[in-house]
Amino acid sequence: MPMLRIDLNCDMGESFGTYRKGLDEEVIKFVSSANIACGWHAGDPHVMNRTVQMAAAHGVGVGAHPGYPDLEGFGRRALDCTRDEIRNYVIYQIGALQAFCAAHRAKMRHVKPHGSLYNAASEDPAVAEAIAEGIASVNPDLIFVGLAGPKGAHIKAIGARFGLKVALEAFADRAYTPDGNLVSRKLPGAVLTDPALVADRAVGMAKESKVVAVDGTVIDLNVQTICVHGDTPGAVEMVKRIRGILDREGVVVRPMEPAPKE
Amino acid sequence: MPMLRIDLNCDMGESFGTYRKGLDEEVIKFVSSANIACGWHAGDPHVMNRTVQMAAAHGVGVGAHPGYPDLEGFGRRALDCTRDEIRNYVIYQIGALQAFCAAHRAKMRHVKPHGSLYNAASEDPAVAEAIAEGIASVNPDLIFVGLAGPKGAHIKAIGARFGLKVALEAFADRAYTPDGNLVSRKLPGAVLTDPALVADRAVGMAKESKVVAVDGTVIDLNVQTICVHGDTPGAVEMVKRIRGILDREGVVVRPMEPAPKE
Amino acid sequence: MPMLRIDLNCDMGESFGTYRKGLDEEVIKFVSSANIACGWHAGDPHVMNRTVQMAAAHGVGVGAHPGYPDLEGFGRRALDCTRDEIRNYVIYQIGALQAFCAAHRAKMRHVKPHGSLYNAASEDPAVAEAIAEGIASVNPDLIFVGLAGPKGAHIKAIGARFGLKVALEAFADRAYTPDGNLVSRKLPGAVLTDPALVADRAVGMAKESKVVAVDGTVIDLNVQTICVHGDTPGAVEMVKRIRGILDREGVVVRPMEPAPKE
Amino acid sequence: MPMLRIDLNCDMGESFGTYRKGLDEEVIKFVSSANIACGWHAGDPHVMNRTVQMAAAHGVGVGAHPGYPDLEGFGRRALDCTRDEIRNYVIYQIGALQAFCAAHRAKMRHVKPHGSLYNAASEDPAVAEAIAEGIASVNPDLIFVGLAGPKGAHIKAIGARFGLKVALEAFADRAYTPDGNLVSRKLPGAVLTDPALVADRAVGMAKESKVVAVDGTVIDLNVQTICVHGDTPGAVEMVKRIRGILDREGVVVRPMEPAPKE
Repeated sequence: MPMLRIDLNCDMGESFGTYRKGLDEEVIKFVSSANIACGWHAGDPHVMNRTVQMAAAHGVGVGAHPGYPDLEGFGRRALDCTRDEIRNYVIYQIGALQAFCAAHRAKMRHVKPHGSLYNAASEDPAVAEAIAEGIASVNPDLIFVGLAGPKGAHIKAIGARFGLKVALEAFADRAYTPDGNLVSRKLPGAVLTDPALVADRAVGMAKESKVVAVDGTVIDLNVQTICVHGDTPGAVEMVKRIRGILDREGVVVRPMEPAPKE
Repeated sequence: MPMLRIDLNCDMGESFGTYRKGLDEEVIKFVSSANIACGWHAGDPHVMNRTVQMAAAHGVGVGAHPGYPDLEGFGRRALDCTRDEIRNYVIYQIGALQAFCAAHRAKMRHVKPHGSLYNAASEDPAVAEAIAEGIASVNPDLIFVGLAGPKGAHIKAIGARFGLKVALEAFADRAYTPDGNLVSRKLPGAVLTDPALVADRAVGMAKESKVVAVDGTVIDLNVQTICVHGDTPGAVEMVKRIRGILDREGVVVRPMEPAPKE
Repeated sequence: MPMLRIDLNCDMGESFGTYRKGLDEEVIKFVSSANIACGWHAGDPHVMNRTVQMAAAHGVGVGAHPGYPDLEGFGRRALDCTRDEIRNYVIYQIGALQAFCAAHRAKMRHVKPHGSLYNAASEDPAVAEAIAEGIASVNPDLIFVGLAGPKGAHIKAIGARFGLKVALEAFADRAYTPDGNLVSRKLPGAVLTDPALVADRAVGMAKESKVVAVDGTVIDLNVQTICVHGDTPGAVEMVKRIRGILDREGVVVRPMEPAPKE
Repeated sequence: MPMLRIDLNCDMGESFGTYRKGLDEEVIKFVSSANIACGWHAGDPHVMNRTVQMAAAHGVGVGAHPGYPDLEGFGRRALDCTRDEIRNYVIYQIGALQAFCAAHRAKMRHVKPHGSLYNAASEDPAVAEAIAEGIASVNPDLIFVGLAGPKGAHIKAIGARFGLKVALEAFADRAYTPDGNLVSRKLPGAVLTDPALVADRAVGMAKESKVVAVDGTVIDLNVQTICVHGDTPGAVEMVKRIRGILDREGVVVRPMEPAPKE
């Protein structure tokens, strides 16, 4: 019987200057991958330095979390960029974080686009291509993280075309439609807040690659990593719960592996 | 008889967005090293991409040109940073440029601080140490470029302490005091504008490690690289002259080598 | 017979720090209104100070030229902002420029959104409303400048609803479709480059409120201001031509007046 | 007997984008003046809008809190600016905030430089002059706030020279040297943390224009405003204490008045 394993990834290093954001020191105990902001939508060189060091000390997989150049909007606003702009933004931000990895003898393992850039990659293959080209031109060993389900279906193929490994991601605390998409945050019930239920869904994703949609349909969702959050004490508490249940269920939590090739 | 060689280095990649600065495409024909802005005092990811590509195509040595986070002041204003801030700023900017080098299979060879950070490194050993620590923690093979003469005398020792090679730099178009310092720009005659004279001084620096000070004293100035400028057509013309004379004099112009160890 | 008059407006104050853009000192001799960048997509406090002073000295009408917070993209990239964000961005930028007007005893007369924000105002009434609300809440005497023709048809009504005067704008160097829209810049022939032709169209707009569309149709285009450019020597030469012909034709060029109420 | 009155001023509006800083909603109940960040070292247009609205609703005096363009360093790092740069930075930031005052029918009453700019104004008369010139050129009715004591002694004279009213400021929670300067934060005991003691000192400043120095000397300190802090629950608690004691002692807390002319 194959080992059951899953990755829990969490955005980190989102503080900036004297501004604090996220309970990184708490949540890092329970996750296996850190998506570290690179100074554009969040983070700064000192935060990056500290966060890479902390991730390395905890044996957590380090990834770059590139975003749009929009600190005020936290990278959540759509910005109409050309393909070259996106490629070069990704290269720049990966490189900046990579230097802190070198300084701390940490290995960068993955790249997960942030916020509005992540959404654009899920919806627009041209954006996903620009990101993949950026990653591949710096380091083709990096894993490209994208949304699992029909919306991000193109990401695996695009990653492959650029010689990249891809890891697909699910959200344990988000409701899914029967066709495998995330329920829009604008709709009621889009975000699940019951820790037991969320932990349960995480286990189902890890063990059976399945999740129950809003209408009760059981849908297939083959994912390599589950996104969790560390912004509030409640969020950290939920991650702790998820981690505890995964441990008890015998699911090994460790840094992401790419999705199997088809 | 040993080969006579010198490096001509020039700041490049200082355009930003729709703003143009510098005649990079012209001056690159005549120099052997490019100090490429990293997006903080000048430059942006697209300019960096283009400039690294161009430098690689011309066989010009690529270097990072990190500066203070001050686009409006072009990195020329003193900013009172802590040692950690400087170290992390240097790491970040080297990394960002390094990623474009990876994308273009170019090798980064050196790091030359920009503007006010360069001056601070020459005057304050703590700043030079912070820069050296930043460079060494990313890649100890990078050459740390600093000012030749008494003001930058500490740079060679500091570089050595961090395991770095150092290249010392002179300015062929600047007047020198008898004790080997640059004449302040605030004084008349600080900047030389006669191309023949400037070219002559460059040859003297390259062939004999000597330069004539304002009072006629011949001073020793053992340098590995000479800084030239490409901001104006006149500046490019002067670089062309300098390069022509060096060629005729049998001085080989090529990417900088570190200063010999003592 | 009523006096024939028109306003020529030009974007100015687009330099930033050590970066120069635009031949403001040249083009200001020929125009009657200056749209002055407010430090977000271009400009900085020193450029604003200098530009307001220069405009005042030439008797040119001063206007704010607010844009998205995107210096790298020069405010030309679409940024998905909320209505409140746009309102507050407009208030902020008007205020910043207003202070330089106070310092130079200049009167701010108008507000013309820049680049991508201008386009958004033309296409999306919600954006035009947010801008109008911002203007009205600072100073309801300011004239809101918007695109003439069907695309900007809503601007006059929206301005009126917020108690603002509106001036409609045409582009003498742009081709128009028979229904009064600008021909897309992506199509050949969208931008006219023959100075005589452009000047002629400006005269037609000023004297008869008419312009000839690409198919020869004569269309009505009642405008209070014509946009001209001062970025290149050729552009300034064209403005000089336009101004000369308008003068000869007896069209008085002076700061914009609002469109007549219907 | 003259009415005893004092102003309590507090820095506000220091949040930025999604980053929260300061307990503005709490502390505003106890103070009489708000120094509102203008988007350079802290704050953004939305925060400014909200903060001006809140200050107006509480009858708190609104002031601009201009700082260096250094969000990462929170305006606390020295930046070597020219006199013109400082003047224009002050004009820009006052104007931006003034527009939100106009939008909320609030009157701007004062300008207090922030952080490193405040310190520079206290130590370098040329900086104080640049700030005064900036304020006076926008609105000579604004009160220029500066440090009381020997270090800021020049501020009153400089303000007067530019036709400005000046208010001098003390810090109830800071130790003073016998010659009336603040004890450096680097020394132990520089910051007082006992609420009763701090409140007591505030009362002494308000009622008798006196404060006890570290060596027990009673020194004269004629101030119009006392700076308090709202960054932490403990800080707000202290302001509440100070306000309560001032109320009981019959000291009226209301927006600052300028210092009497000599």
